[in-house]
Amino acid sequence: MSLSASTTPLATLAWTIDEWRASAVAAVRDKDPGRHLNLLTVLVASLATAPANPVWIHVPTRDEVAAQWQAALKQLVSIDAAPALFGVPVAVKDNIDVAGMPTTAACKGFRYLPTSHAGTVEQLVSSGAIIVGKTNLDQFATGLVGTRSPSYGAVPNAFSSANNLPTRISGGSSSGSAVAVAHGLVPLSLGTDTAGSGRVPAGFNNLVGLKPTKGLFSTRGVVPACRTLDCVSVFAMTLHDAKTALNVLAQYDGADPYARRSQWAPVKAKAKVRIAVPKEPVFASPPSTLEGGAMFRAMYDRACRELAKLCGAEIVPVDFAPLHDLAACLYEGTWVAERWAAVGEYVEKKGEDMDPTVLKIVRGAQKFSAADAFTYEYKAAALRRTIADAFSSFDAVLVPTTPMPPPTMGDIAADPVGINSQLGTYTNFVNLADWCGLAIPGGFCVGHEPGVEGKAVLPFGLTLLAPAFHDKNLLQLASQWLQELNDGHRLLGATSRTATPALDQVTDVLNRPPPLGAPIPPATVRLAVVGAHLAGMPLHHELERVHARFVAKTRTAPCYKLYALAGTKPAKPGLFRVTDGTGAAIRIEVYDIPVAEFGHFMLGVPPPLGIGSVECDGGHWVKSFICEPFALDGATDVTAYGGWRAYLASLGVVAPSAVPLF
Amino acid sequence: MSLSASTTPLATLAWTIDEWRASAVAAVRDKDPGRHLNLLTVLVASLATAPANPVWIHVPTRDEVAAQWQAALKQLVSIDAAPALFGVPVAVKDNIDVAGMPTTAACKGFRYLPTSHAGTVEQLVSSGAIIVGKTNLDQFATGLVGTRSPSYGAVPNAFSSANNLPTRISGGSSSGSAVAVAHGLVPLSLGTDTAGSGRVPAGFNNLVGLKPTKGLFSTRGVVPACRTLDCVSVFAMTLHDAKTALNVLAQYDGADPYARRSQWAPVKAKAKVRIAVPKEPVFASPPSTLEGGAMFRAMYDRACRELAKLCGAEIVPVDFAPLHDLAACLYEGTWVAERWAAVGEYVEKKGEDMDPTVLKIVRGAQKFSAADAFTYEYKAAALRRTIADAFSSFDAVLVPTTPMPPPTMGDIAADPVGINSQLGTYTNFVNLADWCGLAIPGGFCVGHEPGVEGKAVLPFGLTLLAPAFHDKNLLQLASQWLQELNDGHRLLGATSRTATPALDQVTDVLNRPPPLGAPIPPATVRLAVVGAHLAGMPLHHELERVHARFVAKTRTAPCYKLYALAGTKPAKPGLFRVTDGTGAAIRIEVYDIPVAEFGHFMLGVPPPLGIGSVECDGGHWVKSFICEPFALDGATDVTAYGGWRAYLASLGVVAPSAVPLF
Repeated sequence: MSLSASTTPLATLAWTIDEWRASAVAAVRDKDPGRHLNLLTVLVASLATAPANPVWIHVPTRDEVAAQWQAALKQLVSIDAAPALFGVPVAVKDNIDVAGMPTTAACKGFRYLPTSHAGTVEQLVSSGAIIVGKTNLDQFATGLVGTRSPSYGAVPNAFSSANNLPTRISGGSSSGSAVAVAHGLVPLSLGTDTAGSGRVPAGFNNLVGLKPTKGLFSTRGVVPACRTLDCVSVFAMTLHDAKTALNVLAQYDGADPYARRSQWAPVKAKAKVRIAVPKEPVFASPPSTLEGGAMFRAMYDRACRELAKLCGAEIVPVDFAPLHDLAACLYEGTWVAERWAAVGEYVEKKGEDMDPTVLKIVRGAQKFSAADAFTYEYKAAALRRTIADAFSSFDAVLVPTTPMPPPTMGDIAADPVGINSQLGTYTNFVNLADWCGLAIPGGFCVGHEPGVEGKAVLPFGLTLLAPAFHDKNLLQLASQWLQELNDGHRLLGATSRTATPALDQVTDVLNRPPPLGAPIPPATVRLAVVGAHLAGMPLHHELERVHARFVAKTRTAPCYKLYALAGTKPAKPGLFRVTDGTGAAIRIEVYDIPVAEFGHFMLGVPPPLGIGSVECDGGHWVKSFICEPFALDGATDVTAYGGWRAYLASLGVVAPSAVPLF
Repeated sequence: MSLSASTTPLATLAWTIDEWRASAVAAVRDKDPGRHLNLLTVLVASLATAPANPVWIHVPTRDEVAAQWQAALKQLVSIDAAPALFGVPVAVKDNIDVAGMPTTAACKGFRYLPTSHAGTVEQLVSSGAIIVGKTNLDQFATGLVGTRSPSYGAVPNAFSSANNLPTRISGGSSSGSAVAVAHGLVPLSLGTDTAGSGRVPAGFNNLVGLKPTKGLFSTRGVVPACRTLDCVSVFAMTLHDAKTALNVLAQYDGADPYARRSQWAPVKAKAKVRIAVPKEPVFASPPSTLEGGAMFRAMYDRACRELAKLCGAEIVPVDFAPLHDLAACLYEGTWVAERWAAVGEYVEKKGEDMDPTVLKIVRGAQKFSAADAFTYEYKAAALRRTIADAFSSFDAVLVPTTPMPPPTMGDIAADPVGINSQLGTYTNFVNLADWCGLAIPGGFCVGHEPGVEGKAVLPFGLTLLAPAFHDKNLLQLASQWLQELNDGHRLLGATSRTATPALDQVTDVLNRPPPLGAPIPPATVRLAVVGAHLAGMPLHHELERVHARFVAKTRTAPCYKLYALAGTKPAKPGLFRVTDGTGAAIRIEVYDIPVAEFGHFMLGVPPPLGIGSVECDGGHWVKSFICEPFALDGATDVTAYGGWRAYLASLGVVAPSAVPLF
């Protein structure tokens, strides 16, 4: 397929986070920090603001950018310890406070100048990021279209301005943040997501959109939409960048009453994942693209088949009715009163520059009583219980991000409310269900309107969902999949770059073991295994069961003897430290076992074996299998083989040696 | 002090749960189950209902009681496995459904006949309990006084009818349930507690009142007051009985959307507990007892001093302002709208038999909008965060249950709202803060009204509070305290019995170890220690740190040798299994370590020691310290001493041998 991404006003670098950071680090290393500042300055100078370019509501001056770069330099302790976003330009949705830049929430009359950063912006800045602008949105984050911004204009889809076709919407409410990343201007932007505002525009612009677990990223300093549900979200071109953002932003904020301490679910590569999909998936077509629903249905069906084939996933259709009932609570019910609580006073007292649809929605909240609010809360609580039970056996849920391709601006003008509602089909219920979500690119289909056949490029998006604190699990699953699915030809946003597998690689980073000999993180017990627990051996599954993470293959110090124990089943060796000089270095594999799971592992260790300590090659000690001496009765000294695997090979036993995935 | 408890209409047995159960078990064992039924029948026959006796709204017939007893007998698998409440009479507050008995919530017009049990009643009945009646309450559980029951009458305090003094209130809203237990008619009753309804009447009637963690006991089948806050609570005369009730009722109910799975905080006896108390405790006097506030203040100050002295507690004054602000959210704010959501329709359409104060409160909810509800939710969320931070370093909070002794009926008639509000000073904030609470008897003071000096017996109550899922911790702390504080002279409710320490003993039951050799519960790793980890030895604290629970002192099978290892600090032995007949039985202590904590323990085990398995006296195996053979270099064989403690004694080392508390 030949893709015609629109050209942005200026050519963009389309750099990833690591590429921007590498540029910054190199400039500092070369003692030429001005070189990197120059790049940032050129970038910012290229960013026209609304109305000329509806993506940006505010862009800092050249001096302000320089000041940010100086601050980043000042807090740099050493080049080798440059923080994750050192010198990386980031865009921020204009309902999130950046000190010294006005916040408007896309409502000119609401404009104020914050004196302190939002919690998430604090994290960005303390990780070295440079805030290069505030981006447009559906006013007060009320909408999924990206057109409800009376003063700053509708944000066009990053793909739609080519070919003289009707302009398509960007999706919203985080419209500007999505399009800025899709054009490759910045590798990372902040959005917000209450009912889909961080996922719909990701889907419409071929991006990764991470809507984290509620409370994981601070919402302090965000103009509330529905405070009990709001999340700050991120847009990135690659999974690797989304993961970096997760690591930076997932910091407990004691000053945010809705912050939650992270309780990560264990991340592991599973042999077989179970994925729930809607039993009767709903698709629809925007009026301008009558075949849109059918095309999206075909894309989705193909994605399910590929997920099954490429990742060995079991795809299980599930009744989504309780999820849709929960979504109905959100927009037909009383949560809209949170919008009134947030901006009702402004709307009534001043109300300048309000989008008429947003005004109607916010005002509509007044019809509900406090008793109604509780009645809906009861209904939602009951649905949450039903949903938790129905989905408890799944690793993730896979949905299309939207049921239709991006409508045109004309579609929305003709029906500003109806299509908006349809766009939330697979996003509205997620925060009320206390799930996290990860929107990922799912390829493209091509419009077939009469006269423009094959020209309109329509991005298709997929979203993976899971219960709270499974954010990393979703990234890992998506990583496995995207590396396979896109086969090296995945386009990054609307740029001309394609993704290399490394850009969607997160497993190695999530699970990257600390260097051998480094202080043992208190979260794990580092254990050497010698025999039947080696990779591929009969008891290796006991390590998998407790989510052990492979660290290294190495050897013991040269003062151990290895014995094949008599009468053990499966055959097991015993490792003995000796002080008489007859010992040798014995091959071992080292694993980290979560400390909370170690007890379960211990329960399965039978006599004469035990867990003690072993001296490794470099002189450091780790926990290890040891053996009681009474078991030497009838045992065979196999020290000369240098390891259990070699001994077994000498007996003709085939022992697969693959290092496990995790 | 000579106490004049009122006599109840009929003499009562004042039996505890275990005494009732023992009677039932003995009758079955003697093949004379009718003997126990006869007791139950006499009890039920003695229970006059309102208006004659305002305690009871409904009492089952003799045949209905017989049917319950038959059902309990039918489900009895074996006498030895008689369930915890087998044959035990229990009273149920009349806003909790018992199938076949009408529910009124103390509003005649609201009466309905439920066809299924509430979740908590299901648990009672499946544990063998006999429901002997439904008890009076402040209508719709709206009140803390026990007088708001227009058709069934105000419930008099269990202590107040003696001496021709003005009748005092029972406290509410769970008035009947408290007074039924205080008179010793039943050992256990169910109340509900949204803002203090399970604690105020416990305090006013010298009872134990457990307000469990929200969601721990099912609220299915309860007429809601504030559904997001409601708890079912229990009244008992003793801590032991409260603990039995906790074990029976703390069952996750999948059909209750607000049910939570229990996540118990570890229970342990701490050397020093930190207890928060109000920096400026508020006391007040009812109009009839002008010295009431001062008397209660003196009682409370004494209790704090005693807690410090008897339990080694550190008493720390803390600013309670955020707790009082949270309480204000509850009753000045929008949660009252939950009452409107629950019974508003009844109130407006029929509204028969409404208490005028309750009617006014419920109707008052209509003034709040949905936006108000969310605004108060935000305020409460911020206060919860402040409170969690302020109290995070404490083991518990100690407050007086009420700031004043029980007012008279006349006091309440003159001021039905104001005094009611004051009664909730130390109870209103607890559910909004997501804390659990345990009301315990705190002794008595004696009224000094002119003419009746020394006659009015005024129970003083204390309440221990802690964050969610610390219910067992509160029981343990209260147990340590009550056993000391009351010195064997504590009166049980308003009966003539006094508490023996055993009746307030919960530690042994909470922590009772399973019999040695029984299947190891998957929640723990059972570990034998041999040397420096024995009770009183230098490394014993490592077991305490991981919340190890003492199981038994025993010996190994007679096939082990014990060596004093050379150069270890503190001195350590090595245990070796031998097969040559030279071994002996070595003294060991066995502990259960929570499986999730075992990894932490493991990290502290240095070479040459390890954790393997040891054969115990009876032939079963447990995990144990083992030792690598290379450590025998220079070691001394001390097998002949039969254990590390005896060997150390031979060296003149003083080694305390006390078994730790837990």
